[in-house]
Amino acid sequence: MNILGRDIPDYIEGYGEVKHYNGYLAGKGEKSKREIKFRNTLPGDEKLHEDLEELLNKLPLRDEMVVSFHHHLRNGDYVLNMVMDSIAKRGYKDITIAASSIFPCHKGLVKYIEEGVVTGIYAAYISGPVAEAISAGKLAKPAVMHTHGGRARVMESGDLAIDIAFIAAPTSDDYGNINGVEGQSACGALGYAHTDAETAGVTVAITDNLVEYPNPIIEIDQTKIDYVLKVDAIGDPNGIVSGTTQITKNPIGLKIAKLTADFIKDSGYLKDGMSFQTGAGGISLAVADEMKNIMKKDDIKGSFASGGITGYIVDMYKEGLFKSLLDVQCFDLAAIQSAKENPGHITMSASMYANADNKGAVVNKLDVVILGATEMDTDFNVNVTTGSNGTIMGGSGGHSDTAAGSKLCIIVSQLANSRISVLKDRINTVTTPGETVDILVTERGIAINPKRTDLIEKFKDSHLPIRTIEELRDMAVAMTGKPRDIEYDDKIVAVVEYRDGSVVDVVRKRK
Amino acid sequence: MNILGRDIPDYIEGYGEVKHYNGYLAGKGEKSKREIKFRNTLPGDEKLHEDLEELLNKLPLRDEMVVSFHHHLRNGDYVLNMVMDSIAKRGYKDITIAASSIFPCHKGLVKYIEEGVVTGIYAAYISGPVAEAISAGKLAKPAVMHTHGGRARVMESGDLAIDIAFIAAPTSDDYGNINGVEGQSACGALGYAHTDAETAGVTVAITDNLVEYPNPIIEIDQTKIDYVLKVDAIGDPNGIVSGTTQITKNPIGLKIAKLTADFIKDSGYLKDGMSFQTGAGGISLAVADEMKNIMKKDDIKGSFASGGITGYIVDMYKEGLFKSLLDVQCFDLAAIQSAKENPGHITMSASMYANADNKGAVVNKLDVVILGATEMDTDFNVNVTTGSNGTIMGGSGGHSDTAAGSKLCIIVSQLANSRISVLKDRINTVTTPGETVDILVTERGIAINPKRTDLIEKFKDSHLPIRTIEELRDMAVAMTGKPRDIEYDDKIVAVVEYRDGSVVDVVRKRK
Repeated sequence: MNILGRDIPDYIEGYGEVKHYNGYLAGKGEKSKREIKFRNTLPGDEKLHEDLEELLNKLPLRDEMVVSFHHHLRNGDYVLNMVMDSIAKRGYKDITIAASSIFPCHKGLVKYIEEGVVTGIYAAYISGPVAEAISAGKLAKPAVMHTHGGRARVMESGDLAIDIAFIAAPTSDDYGNINGVEGQSACGALGYAHTDAETAGVTVAITDNLVEYPNPIIEIDQTKIDYVLKVDAIGDPNGIVSGTTQITKNPIGLKIAKLTADFIKDSGYLKDGMSFQTGAGGISLAVADEMKNIMKKDDIKGSFASGGITGYIVDMYKEGLFKSLLDVQCFDLAAIQSAKENPGHITMSASMYANADNKGAVVNKLDVVILGATEMDTDFNVNVTTGSNGTIMGGSGGHSDTAAGSKLCIIVSQLANSRISVLKDRINTVTTPGETVDILVTERGIAINPKRTDLIEKFKDSHLPIRTIEELRDMAVAMTGKPRDIEYDDKIVAVVEYRDGSVVDVVRKRK
Repeated sequence: MNILGRDIPDYIEGYGEVKHYNGYLAGKGEKSKREIKFRNTLPGDEKLHEDLEELLNKLPLRDEMVVSFHHHLRNGDYVLNMVMDSIAKRGYKDITIAASSIFPCHKGLVKYIEEGVVTGIYAAYISGPVAEAISAGKLAKPAVMHTHGGRARVMESGDLAIDIAFIAAPTSDDYGNINGVEGQSACGALGYAHTDAETAGVTVAITDNLVEYPNPIIEIDQTKIDYVLKVDAIGDPNGIVSGTTQITKNPIGLKIAKLTADFIKDSGYLKDGMSFQTGAGGISLAVADEMKNIMKKDDIKGSFASGGITGYIVDMYKEGLFKSLLDVQCFDLAAIQSAKENPGHITMSASMYANADNKGAVVNKLDVVILGATEMDTDFNVNVTTGSNGTIMGGSGGHSDTAAGSKLCIIVSQLANSRISVLKDRINTVTTPGETVDILVTERGIAINPKRTDLIEKFKDSHLPIRTIEELRDMAVAMTGKPRDIEYDDKIVAVVEYRDGSVVDVVRKRK
């Protein structure tokens, strides 16, 4: 049992020795960035190729290699499938894929998992057929589910050494200066691709928009790219981003958002210089909308908004409510446009965003973050990795990173929905440790983590519906009944790595 | 004797084994970036200090440490002296200083060299009292004089591991996001500081312009900075940059510039998409001015101009003659202003600019570079390291890097000046190997390197005064007489490292 009460062995077959989670600041100390071996590019050397097969002939492909991909093309990505199809055809086996996230469009991987072409997966988020295949125990080794910052950490430290990085590049010149804000497959910031480019032995930029040298907007530069491959299309624009992200229309969601904004206002954190992050979920966006109104009314100027950026946050920037946007990925077209045009819209690497093992990530400077939850327990531990049925359907992304870094971490969730309660005595998986979560806001009340005695004191006479988390749980149980425990097999199908590389939980195969 | 005919031992006391120069492309192969050890910065950790002594108490100071500085504050820099005075007061010895360049304002170092506080120096350019002290044999170990790109290489490879980097930062926030384009000590691009920040175990940003987090213009980001030190002044604005750089008024210089521009025009390299670099010397700027006129008249649109950027080059960018400026350092106020304001004015690291051991430097994409020479021999080898009296008075800077990368490397120089000829049978020091130099343009004629048979063919019926280099030498000798050879001691006072880390020459103590 680790300190969160999760049953984790000291050694996991196919993963190795376990470093047990020991608190969110336990990773303080001496760190290292691993040695990187590569070949230099000298005057006269060319990088540009127009044929994938011809390029693959030049790469050091081998069994057991580790290849990486980023997920900025989201559910419209063609690159992972394109590359893995060719690698599989060549007969290589036992490949580990380090993809920052895996989406339903990557369903072609399931076959390669079943055939032993792919036997290892590292990702911060997995949804769709690949998640189901992993949960069903089809992947030979347990999947490693790290955080967004943790991905930068595993690559920089050498916990996972990338042999070849394949980087989808919406725009590139012939020498590998790339950006994500232009071209038919524009996706905005390329935050998750930086560490791949910096640490892989060989890096290939794959683009469908080749521009004259030098590309005038450079997010990742030529010194980190070995080859440029020009293809017809790297993704399906319809799957890359939604046209616009949407505020929830659900009145329960809107109520939660209003309560959340009121709580933030009364908490004392909503003041000049405040920094803020929220995701692209409907309730989170509704919180941003409420915040916007309060900030405008009370003439409050924030410092920065970070994270995945949406049009709502861009609007707040344009209205002067935030001085800067620190952007690791864009969720909609307005965000992409802004990343290209607005000088205060700064793209950043995932390491700068959220890595616990560098000289200081942006999340460390975050005041308030709004996050979601699939499940939560009365210790404020949050699950965003598995569904209430025990199957993988997500992952931390930046959840654990922002919870750890922020001064006020608020989980917003409907307390009960379709007869399922978010609050349980025991959750299927711990993604984010409760010690880093401060508040749960539901439509039936707001619970403050008991360790935040300062906030409990501040809200003791509040007009807001402050409840203990046990009270909220009891309300939920009264509505939904006691949830049935899911029965699991012993087989570990995924390891949930905390941002410092310790193991916070494991996912087991369902019976 | 190395392949350039220079007498270099296989082992140099205080330097080590010598890798002999073996051609400008001999460094092709497998390379590595060294492992970096550091301490991480977690939520709650602060970086800001306001007292140098208090900060130094926290740093891992020790005898024999390697400390680094950049030279973007040029002859107005306060930071190197400020830090070294405090370190010397604490009694540390045998320190190696890796300063990208050393100027007359660093004369305080001479005392520390004499006292054994400083026993090693790495720099790309050294002028003034420190250069004289080194030439006089006062430094315990030979100074290592690398190129601008070579400096990035030695640090990345670990040939020189920096213990502590002290980075003058014209603007910084409290978490170490820094830029050089704002503040009372604005100097423009911070190209030479990137590798220090990326590779040093501990990095300190020293600023006199502390701004709110996040600094909206970030050239080097917070993930590479351990501490921020706020001081009253990091430099003297009068010494940091000249107000404006100036075209030569000397009619001989103007004649050379005109010949050079005519040569470039007739060479075929002056066409749409051409890339170009020139320094801040009076003749070089006159060449740029001539080029501007030709490009405007013939409606030629270049690709990029690189290197140290001046107002003349900014004007060409503004007139649409270059699409982008790739800028490693700014030479005047117009360049600094442009680096801040113009989206196509892109700052770059010295590694991106010129490092031979990464995945491709900007110099590799350069068509035409205009460079100077103190001396040149009939093999086209160039000396910009020592004066005609044999004393150190400069160094490669980007000279060897751009010569190696460019398709057309032109040396512009007055053939004879004050009874001293630029052309000699034997030069005091080889900085840049002749195989990378294509053309010498003087007021008495233009010499083409015999290896450029293509250009010799192209110019065989030219109206331009094409001469052999021997003819030019003979003209010079007729004007100045045979130069006297300088007598040297056996003691090696400096090692001239080529960009790939091989030794191209050594500087000996004068008798």
